[in-house]
Amino acid sequence: MAAQANNEVLQKAQRARQAAARLALMSRAEKDRLLLLMADALESGAGAILQANARDVKQAEERGLSRAPIDRLLLDEKRIREMAEGLRAIAALPDPVGEVIEGRRLPNGLEITKVRVPLGVVGIIYESRPNVTVDAAGLCLKSGNAVVLRGGSEAIHSNLALVKVLNHAGIPAGLPEGAIEIIETTDREAAAQLMQLDEYLDVLMPRGGGDLIRRVKRESTVPVIETGEGNCHIYVDASARLDQAEEIVVNAKCQRPGVCNAAETLLVHRQVAAEFLPRLGSRLTELGVELRACEQARGLLPGAHSATEEDWATEFLALILAVRVVAGVEEAIAHINRYGTRHSEAIITEDLENARRFVREVEAAVVYVNASTRFTDGGQFGLGAEMGISTQKLHARGPMGVREMTSYKWVVMGEGQVRP
Amino acid sequence: MAAQANNEVLQKAQRARQAAARLALMSRAEKDRLLLLMADALESGAGAILQANARDVKQAEERGLSRAPIDRLLLDEKRIREMAEGLRAIAALPDPVGEVIEGRRLPNGLEITKVRVPLGVVGIIYESRPNVTVDAAGLCLKSGNAVVLRGGSEAIHSNLALVKVLNHAGIPAGLPEGAIEIIETTDREAAAQLMQLDEYLDVLMPRGGGDLIRRVKRESTVPVIETGEGNCHIYVDASARLDQAEEIVVNAKCQRPGVCNAAETLLVHRQVAAEFLPRLGSRLTELGVELRACEQARGLLPGAHSATEEDWATEFLALILAVRVVAGVEEAIAHINRYGTRHSEAIITEDLENARRFVREVEAAVVYVNASTRFTDGGQFGLGAEMGISTQKLHARGPMGVREMTSYKWVVMGEGQVRP
Repeated sequence: MAAQANNEVLQKAQRARQAAARLALMSRAEKDRLLLLMADALESGAGAILQANARDVKQAEERGLSRAPIDRLLLDEKRIREMAEGLRAIAALPDPVGEVIEGRRLPNGLEITKVRVPLGVVGIIYESRPNVTVDAAGLCLKSGNAVVLRGGSEAIHSNLALVKVLNHAGIPAGLPEGAIEIIETTDREAAAQLMQLDEYLDVLMPRGGGDLIRRVKRESTVPVIETGEGNCHIYVDASARLDQAEEIVVNAKCQRPGVCNAAETLLVHRQVAAEFLPRLGSRLTELGVELRACEQARGLLPGAHSATEEDWATEFLALILAVRVVAGVEEAIAHINRYGTRHSEAIITEDLENARRFVREVEAAVVYVNASTRFTDGGQFGLGAEMGISTQKLHARGPMGVREMTSYKWVVMGEGQVRP
Repeated sequence: MAAQANNEVLQKAQRARQAAARLALMSRAEKDRLLLLMADALESGAGAILQANARDVKQAEERGLSRAPIDRLLLDEKRIREMAEGLRAIAALPDPVGEVIEGRRLPNGLEITKVRVPLGVVGIIYESRPNVTVDAAGLCLKSGNAVVLRGGSEAIHSNLALVKVLNHAGIPAGLPEGAIEIIETTDREAAAQLMQLDEYLDVLMPRGGGDLIRRVKRESTVPVIETGEGNCHIYVDASARLDQAEEIVVNAKCQRPGVCNAAETLLVHRQVAAEFLPRLGSRLTELGVELRACEQARGLLPGAHSATEEDWATEFLALILAVRVVAGVEEAIAHINRYGTRHSEAIITEDLENARRFVREVEAAVVYVNASTRFTDGGQFGLGAEMGISTQKLHARGPMGVREMTSYKWVVMGEGQVRP
C-alpha cells in the first residue's frame, strides 16, 4: 500500500501547508481583491487556456472518447467568462473566517469563544470538468484554505493552464505561494501518495464517480468528505395533488438529468397509480424518458421495460426513470432507505402525518415536501457557490459552501485561573 | 487487507443500524427514563460487575501488568457509583436532537430548516478503562445514536458485564435491541472488520494511544474522529506576571499529570528565564517533577537533564516537563506548531499584541491566555460529559459533548416548487 516516493506531491503538499498558515490570517479585503484579479486574468488569459484545452480535446478524440465527456471537457470564451463570474460571485460572499459561533463566561470567570477558522489544506481529487479547478481554488481561497488539486489526465493541460493563470495573477499581488497547487503527475501513484499525506492535508474531497469515492475512502488516511452520488426518489402519496406531482416529477427527472439532484426513481401509492401513471407516463415518454417499472406499474405504463434489482440502486444520470408502486409511506421510506444514497428525497402529499413521518424517517441530506429535488444546491439554499454536496453525516451534510469549508478553534481568556 | 469474515461483528453492526433508526425518533423523556433506569441497574448489579472485573484484574496480574494499568482497570463500589452518577448527569443534559440550527424562507417561497439529527451508528475502539463503556453508551443513547463498542482484551469481562447490566435494564423498558452492542471477540481481526463496515457505521472513534489512532486512520473506511493525544505547551512571555505563570505551570503539569490536557513542555522568554526558571524549577523538583531542558535552561535549573529532540515531541503523561528558552512569541508559536498535537496551548502574557498573535497563529483545538490547559474538558466548557477531545479539524474540534455526536438534515417545505 505504501505510495511510491514522488517529490512533486510531497513538496506541493508541504508548500500548501506553509501557505495555509498565511491564508488563515488574511483579511476579507485581501482575499476578495485577489479573487477579482484572478477573475480578470482568466478572461484576459483566455487564449492560452483555450490552446491548452484544445490539446486535451484532441487527445480525448484520439482516445475515442464519446461526445458527452468531450463536451464536459470543452472550454470556450463563454465558459471561461462563466468561471470568471464564478470567482466574482465568490468574492461577493461573506467571509466565514473569524465568525464567533458561540461564547460564554464560565462560573470561574474564564471567557470562552468558539471562533471559525479555515480547515487548513484541502485536497481535491476530481475527474474532467476544468471548471472545478477554478471553483475549488476560489472557494478555498475565500475560506482561507490552501488547496492541492489533483485532476484527471483528460483535462491536465487545461487544468495546468488555469492554475498558471490564477497564480500568475495572484502571487505578485499577495497570494501566498503554495495557496493553489496542482499535481502535474496524473498517475494512480500520485493520487495514492496524496491520500497518505495526513501530516499536511486536513481533508480530502473526491469529486467523481462511485469508484473514485470508494477508492479514496479505502486508501486515504486524510479525513474524507464524500460528495455527489445521488440516487434520488420522489414518492407520490395517495393524498398528493396529482397535477403538482406531475410537474415535480417532470422537473426533477428532465430539467437537467445529468446532475446528482435529479430524480432516478418514482414511487407511487397504489391508490393513485391507476390515475397518475398513465398521464405521467405519456408525458415522460414524449420527453424522451425511458421507463423501467415494477410489474404493477408496467400495466399502467405502455412501453415501460421491466425494472431489475440493479435499476433501483442505479444513479442513471440520464433520461431513465425507475417506477415502483408501493403500498404507502412506510414502504416508500423503506425503499428509499434501502436503495438511496442519502442525497435528496421528496414526498408529494397533502397529508400532514405522512409528510412529518417522511421528513423524520428518510435518511438523506435533504428531504422535501412538495418540491423538486433539483433545489439541492448551495446557490439555491443561499449558501453561495458550493464545493459539492456531502452525502455523509460527519462535518457537513448537503450543499457545502464556504462556511462548510471551515473548522473552529476555542479561545479561552483568563486571568490566572487554574483547575482546582 | 480484507478482514476475515466474522459473523459476530457484522451481525452486531447490522443490529445497531436497525436500532439507530428507532433511536433517532425517541423523545428526550424516553431516553432520559432509560438512562436513569440503567444508572440504578449499575448500582444494584454491582456484585456481578465486580466479579467480572476481578477476573480481568487477576488476568492482568498473571500477565505481569504494572500497577498503573491495573489501577485504571480496577473497579470498586465507588467507581460503579460514579458511572451511575455519570449516566444521571447525561440524563440531565438537554437533548441535542431536533434542534433547529438555522432556517429561512427562500425567494421562491421554499422554507428550509437545518435540523439536528443523530449521527446514526457510532463505533468506538478503546483500550482498558471500563468506565468508557458506560460513558459512551450513555452519551450515544442521549444523542440518539446506536453504539458498537470494541474494548480491549484486558477489560473484556468487565465490559461485557457492564453492557449486560445496561441492556437488561434498558431493553425491557423500551431500549431498542442493538442500541448498545459490544464485540466479544477481542482479536485484531475483529477490530479490522469493524473498520471496514462503512455500510453500517457512520463514525469510528479510536480512544487510546497514538499507535491505535494511527492504525484506525490507516485502515478504516468509516469516517474517523481522532481524539486525545495532547502534547500541550505553556509559553511564558516576557511580560507575564511571573507569580501567575508559576501557579499555572504547576497546575497544568502536576494537578493530574496522566491526562491529555496536562502540560508537557514549558517555553520561556529569554528575558525572564533567569528570574523565572530557578524559582519554578525548585518548586517543581519539590513536587517530584523531572525536568528535561535545553542548554540555556539547564544553566538555570540545577539537576535538569538535557532535552532530546524526542522530548519536544513526547506526551509524557507523567511528572516530566520539557523546558526550552525561546527568543519570543514567534519562536514559541513555531515550536508549538512544529511539535504540538493541536490539543491545548497556553500563553502567559500581559502584552495584548502577543496574546492576539498567539491566539490566531497557534494551531490547536483550544488556545488559552493566562489560564491552565487543564480546563479543556466538556464538563468545564459547559458541554456536559464528553466523548473525547477531538484533535482534528473536521466535524468537531476540542471537547465533544452530546451535540458534537450529531449531524443535521435539511428539511425543505414547498407547495409545488420546481426549478426553472
